[in-house]
Amino acid sequence: MAVPPSTYPRRLLPLFLGLFQAALLLFFALFVTYDEPSAQAEDTSLVANQVYSTFPFFQDIQVMLVVGLGLLLTFLPRYGFSSLTHNFLLLNFSMQWALVLQGLLHHFHHRQVHLDLHKLLISEFAAVTVLISVGAILGRASPCQLLVLATCEIPVYLASEWVIVTCLGVLDVGGTITIHIFSCYFGLGVSKALFRATQQPLHPKETPTPRSDLMSLVGTLILWVFWPSFVAVLCQPGDAQHRAILNTLLAMSASAITTVVASSLLERDGKLSLGHLQNGSLAGGVAIGVVADMAVPPAAALALGSLSAAVCVLGFRFLSPLLGRKLTLHDQCGIHNLHGLPGILGAAASVVAVLAASKDTSGSQPSPLAPAGGNASEALCQAAGLAVAVGASLLAGLLTGAALRLPCLARPPERLCFDDSLYFKIQDQAESPGPDSSAEEGALALKEQL
Amino acid sequence: MAVPPSTYPRRLLPLFLGLFQAALLLFFALFVTYDEPSAQAEDTSLVANQVYSTFPFFQDIQVMLVVGLGLLLTFLPRYGFSSLTHNFLLLNFSMQWALVLQGLLHHFHHRQVHLDLHKLLISEFAAVTVLISVGAILGRASPCQLLVLATCEIPVYLASEWVIVTCLGVLDVGGTITIHIFSCYFGLGVSKALFRATQQPLHPKETPTPRSDLMSLVGTLILWVFWPSFVAVLCQPGDAQHRAILNTLLAMSASAITTVVASSLLERDGKLSLGHLQNGSLAGGVAIGVVADMAVPPAAALALGSLSAAVCVLGFRFLSPLLGRKLTLHDQCGIHNLHGLPGILGAAASVVAVLAASKDTSGSQPSPLAPAGGNASEALCQAAGLAVAVGASLLAGLLTGAALRLPCLARPPERLCFDDSLYFKIQDQAESPGPDSSAEEGALALKEQL
Amino acid sequence: MAVPPSTYPRRLLPLFLGLFQAALLLFFALFVTYDEPSAQAEDTSLVANQVYSTFPFFQDIQVMLVVGLGLLLTFLPRYGFSSLTHNFLLLNFSMQWALVLQGLLHHFHHRQVHLDLHKLLISEFAAVTVLISVGAILGRASPCQLLVLATCEIPVYLASEWVIVTCLGVLDVGGTITIHIFSCYFGLGVSKALFRATQQPLHPKETPTPRSDLMSLVGTLILWVFWPSFVAVLCQPGDAQHRAILNTLLAMSASAITTVVASSLLERDGKLSLGHLQNGSLAGGVAIGVVADMAVPPAAALALGSLSAAVCVLGFRFLSPLLGRKLTLHDQCGIHNLHGLPGILGAAASVVAVLAASKDTSGSQPSPLAPAGGNASEALCQAAGLAVAVGASLLAGLLTGAALRLPCLARPPERLCFDDSLYFKIQDQAESPGPDSSAEEGALALKEQL
Repeated sequence: MAVPPSTYPRRLLPLFLGLFQAALLLFFALFVTYDEPSAQAEDTSLVANQVYSTFPFFQDIQVMLVVGLGLLLTFLPRYGFSSLTHNFLLLNFSMQWALVLQGLLHHFHHRQVHLDLHKLLISEFAAVTVLISVGAILGRASPCQLLVLATCEIPVYLASEWVIVTCLGVLDVGGTITIHIFSCYFGLGVSKALFRATQQPLHPKETPTPRSDLMSLVGTLILWVFWPSFVAVLCQPGDAQHRAILNTLLAMSASAITTVVASSLLERDGKLSLGHLQNGSLAGGVAIGVVADMAVPPAAALALGSLSAAVCVLGFRFLSPLLGRKLTLHDQCGIHNLHGLPGILGAAASVVAVLAASKDTSGSQPSPLAPAGGNASEALCQAAGLAVAVGASLLAGLLTGAALRLPCLARPPERLCFDDSLYFKIQDQAESPGPDSSAEEGALALKEQL
Repeated sequence: MAVPPSTYPRRLLPLFLGLFQAALLLFFALFVTYDEPSAQAEDTSLVANQVYSTFPFFQDIQVMLVVGLGLLLTFLPRYGFSSLTHNFLLLNFSMQWALVLQGLLHHFHHRQVHLDLHKLLISEFAAVTVLISVGAILGRASPCQLLVLATCEIPVYLASEWVIVTCLGVLDVGGTITIHIFSCYFGLGVSKALFRATQQPLHPKETPTPRSDLMSLVGTLILWVFWPSFVAVLCQPGDAQHRAILNTLLAMSASAITTVVASSLLERDGKLSLGHLQNGSLAGGVAIGVVADMAVPPAAALALGSLSAAVCVLGFRFLSPLLGRKLTLHDQCGIHNLHGLPGILGAAASVVAVLAASKDTSGSQPSPLAPAGGNASEALCQAAGLAVAVGASLLAGLLTGAALRLPCLARPPERLCFDDSLYFKIQDQAESPGPDSSAEEGALALKEQL
Repeated sequence: MAVPPSTYPRRLLPLFLGLFQAALLLFFALFVTYDEPSAQAEDTSLVANQVYSTFPFFQDIQVMLVVGLGLLLTFLPRYGFSSLTHNFLLLNFSMQWALVLQGLLHHFHHRQVHLDLHKLLISEFAAVTVLISVGAILGRASPCQLLVLATCEIPVYLASEWVIVTCLGVLDVGGTITIHIFSCYFGLGVSKALFRATQQPLHPKETPTPRSDLMSLVGTLILWVFWPSFVAVLCQPGDAQHRAILNTLLAMSASAITTVVASSLLERDGKLSLGHLQNGSLAGGVAIGVVADMAVPPAAALALGSLSAAVCVLGFRFLSPLLGRKLTLHDQCGIHNLHGLPGILGAAASVVAVLAASKDTSGSQPSPLAPAGGNASEALCQAAGLAVAVGASLLAGLLTGAALRLPCLARPPERLCFDDSLYFKIQDQAESPGPDSSAEEGALALKEQL
C-alpha cells in the first residue's frame, strides 16, 4: 500500500485544500454575515463585555493548540516541522470545516448564518478532536490522510456532541466525554483499521533525542498553564466559572506531583521518564473537565487529578505495550493513556458527583430535553453519554481508518516515516533520501552543526 | 567601508545608548507625569475598566514583538543571540524615543506630558515599524547602524502617521498602511542606499538549519496566535472591535491554508518551503488590518487572507529573485513579500470597501479634517494615504541608508556577517575568529555537542 | 557526604511526595470548601468581574513561573530536563504546602477554609520564594534536598511576610522585600551552610552552550514581558494598578537598555555577555515592585530601572567572584545580583518615596497596625521590613542548609552534578555514566545529531 517516493502524488494535497478553500469562500459569500451592528449604547457595552470576557480565554486556547500542542508533538526528533505544520494546518482546516457544517446544521433558520466569537470557539473545540485523534498515527500518515481523517471526524463529532449534550442533557463543560473520550477512541479506531494486524516495528527515527524531548516538555508546560482556560471558557460566568478554574488548577497541580511519584516508582532505578511527565502532568485536566463546574468539594478535584495521573502513567507502563502486543493496536503518542483512561475516570466521577449532588447546586442548567426525574436519571445520562461517545467514535474511526487505506492518499513508506524530508524542502539535503541513510544522516548532522 | 575587527569601535554603542538614556531621564524628570489620581469612585472604576480592556491586548502585543518576532528572526543559525537581542533592544529604544517625540510633538499643551497605557501603546506601534524595517538588512548591519536607523525612522513615522490618519482621515485601524507599508519601503530604501549596486553574495552562514528553522516557525505561530490583538486593540469597543477580531481570525486562517497550497504548487516536487510557511501564514494579518473594523462581509476577509498569502508566496518565489537581480535590492527577511505586497493588497481592498460601504456603517469615525463628500472622496483618501506612505518611506529610507554608510557606524565585514561572535562573548570561543572558518566552526560544533 | 549512584536512595522522593499528597488530600477533605454559591444576580456579576480582573493576571504569572523561569534555568546545557522539571515540581509542591499552612494559620476561624482564586494567588507568591532560592544551589542539589528546602522556606516566608506587611505595615505591592530579598538571602544562607567552606570548582558541564543560552534568553524575554502582571496583580484596581503597570514597564525598559550599556562597557572588547542580558534585563522589575503603586514620578521608575540593571551587571562582574573567593559563597544563578542587590535598591527607593510623598497620595492603604505618625515612621517601617527580611531569611537559610547536609537527602556526587542522566531515563544512554565522560559525551552527541 505504501507508495514509493517517485510516484508520490504531490498534487493531491494542494488540490484538495484549494478546492476546499474555494468552496468555503463560496459558502461564506452566500450565507454568512456578522450580526447587525448594535444600535443602542447598552448593546455596545454588552458586546464589549462579551469580547472582554471571552477573548482572553479564546487566545489562551489558541496558544494551547497552536504552540503548546504543536511543541508537545515535536518529540519525534526528525519530524518537528511536520508535527508543528500538520497540527497547524489541521486546526485551521477542521475549524473552517466545522464552521461550514455548523452553519448548515444548526443555524440555517433564516438563510443567514450569523458569525460571532462564540461560534468560532465552538468550531475550535470541534477541531481539537482532530488534533487529538491524529496522535495515534503521528508520523506514519501523509497529510492527505490526515485531512481525510479531519473531513470524516468533524461531522461525526458534531452529531455525537448534539446527541450527548442536547438530547441526553449530559453535563460536560470541559469536553471530557464529548472531546477527549470521543477523539481518543476515534483515533484508536482509525489506527486499528489503518494498520490492521501489522505490528508496527520500532522505527530508528522514532526515538526522542534530549533536544526534541526538551521542546516537547516545554509544550506540555504551556498546555498545563492554559488548561484552566480551556475548561472554564464555556462555563456560566460567576460562581460556576470560578469553581471550574479552581477545580482545574487543583487537579492539574495534583497531577503534576503524582506523575513524578508514579513515574519514579515504576522505573527500575527511580529515574523519571520524560514520556510520563509530558503526558501525566496533563491527565488531571482531561479528567476534571466533566465535573469542573459542579459543586464538587476541592478534595475531589485533587483526588481526581492524582488518580488520573497515576492511571495515565500506569497506562504507559503496562497497558500500551499490552494493547500493542495483544490487539496490535498502534498508539504513537499514547492518546489512550492521556485522553482515554483519564476521560473514563472523569466520566465515572461525574456519575458519582451527579448522584451525590442535590439538583439545585449543579453548576450548569440541565438541558430541556434531559429526562426529568432526579439525580439517578441524570447519572444514567452521564453514563449513557460515555457509552455513546465510545461507541460512535470507535465505529466511525474504524470506517475512517479503512477509507485512509485508499492508495491515492499516499501513506508514506515505512522507510520514510517520521521524516520531515518527505514533506519539506530541507536546505542542502538530497532531494530523495536513498537507503544509505547513514551517509545522509551524517550530512544532516554536519549541516546542523554549522 | 567595512571595518576590520581590530579597529572595531566597541565604545560607540554604549556611548550612544548611555547618552540617550540620560537624556530620556532628564526629559521625563522635567516634563512627564502620570494623570492625577481620580477623585471619585466612578473614575476609579473607569480607569480600572480601561486597564482591564486594554492591558490584556497590550501584553499579547508585547509577546508578539519580544518573543514571537524575536524567534521568527532566529532562522539565521549562528545569529540567534543577535536576532533576539537586537530586536529586544530596538523595541525598547524605539519605544522610548517615540515617547519623547510624541511628548514633544503632540502633548506639549500644558508643559506637562501625561503618561498612560494608551500612549505607551502608541509608542509601541511606532517601534514596530523599526522592527520590520531592519528585516531588510538583518545580519549585515551593526547594532549602531540599527540604532541610527531607529533614530531616523521614528520621527518620519510619526509625521507620516499624522499626515495619513489625522490630515487625510485615512481609516487604518490595524496599521496596514501606516505601519506595514511604511516600514517595508523604508527598510527597502535603507537597504538600497546602504548596499547600492553591490549584489550581496550568498553567505555560508545565511542558510537556515533544521533547528533554527524550527525555532523560527515557533515564532511565526506565536505571531499568528496573537495577531488579532494587534489589529483590534485600538478599535472602538463593541461591534467594531468584535468584527475586527473575527475578520482577522478568518483572514489568518485562510492565509495558513493558502500558504500550504501555494508553497506546495510552486515547489518542484510538491514539498513545502519553510520560508513560505514562516511568512505566508502571517500575510493575511497584514492585509486585513486596514479593513478589519469596517463592515466588510466575512467572505471578504477570507478572500483577502487567501489572496495575500498567495501573493506573499509568489513574491518569495518570483519577485524577490527578480528584484535582487534587476535592482540589486537586498531584502534579507523578505519584508517586501510579507509587509509590502499584502499591505498594498489590503490598501486596495480598503478603497473597494469604502466605495461599497454606506457612510454610517463604517467602523471608525471619519476624521474631522477628512474631506467631506461621500465615499468617493474617502476612497481617494485611502489611496492618497497609500501614496504618502510609500513615497515618504522610500525617500526617508534612502536618506537614512546613505547615513548608515558613515564609517564610524562600523558595518561588519562580509566575513563576519551573520555571526553572533562579533557581538557576543561566546563561551570558550576564540576571541577574534580568523579566516580559517572551518577549524573555528568545527570547534563550535564540538562545543555545541557537549 | 555525596552518595555514590549505586546506593542512591531512589525511593525517598516518591515516598516523600506521595505522603505529602495524601496528607494534603486529607486536609482538603476535612477542612476546605469553596465559597457558597452567590444567591443574587449582583453577586454573580461581582464574582464574574473578580474572575475577569484577576484571572488574566494569574495566567500571566503562571506562564512566567512555569515556562519563563523554567526556560531561564535551562542555561546549563545538560541539565535542561532537571531545571524545567524541578522548577515545575517545586512550584506545585510549594503552592500546595502554602495553601495548607495558610489554611492552618490564617483562615481557621470557622473550622472551614474557603478557597478562592485570591488565596491560590497568595500561595503562588509564596512558592516564588522557593523557586528563586534554589537558584543558588541549582545543579548541585538533589530533588529531595530541594523539597526539604521548600518545606522549610514556606512557613518562614509566611511568618516573615506576616510580620513585615501586617505588623510593620510595610508597603510592598510587588514583593520586592517580602519575596525577592527574602528568597535571595534564604538561598544564599542555604548555599553557605550546605557547601560550607569548600570552594565549588568549575564543573565542565556548567558552561552554557550557544543552544542552551538561547533557550535561557527566551525564558528571560518571557519573564520580561509578563513582569508587569506580577507586580500589579495585587494592586487596588484603578489608578494604583494603572500606575504600577506603567512604572514597571518603564523600569523594565530602562533595565533592558542599561544592561546592554553596562555589559558592553565591562567586557574587554565591548561584546555583550549573555549572563548579563539574561539577568540584568529583569533587574528593574525586582527593584520597582516596592514602589510601583506609589505616586512616584515616571522619571524615578526609569532611574530605578537603570540603576538596578547597572548594579546587577556590576554584581556579576565584580561582587560574585569576590564573594566566591572571600566568603566561599556559591551562587549558581547569581540570585544575589538579580534579586538581592536590586531588591535592596528598591527598598531604599521606597524609603525615599515614602519620605517624599504626602500621606494621602500613597497608593495603598496603610495597615491598621502601622505606627501612625507621619512619613518618617512609615519610612522607618520600610527600613525595618528590609532588616527583618534579610535577618530572618539568612538565619532560616543557614539552618535549612545545615539540614540539607543530612546524608539521606542524597546530594549528588560532584562528578554527576549538572547532569540530567542522574534523574531522568534518557534514551539509549548508559544507565550509570562512568568516569570516561568523553566517550559517553561523544555517544550523546552522536545521538543528538541523528
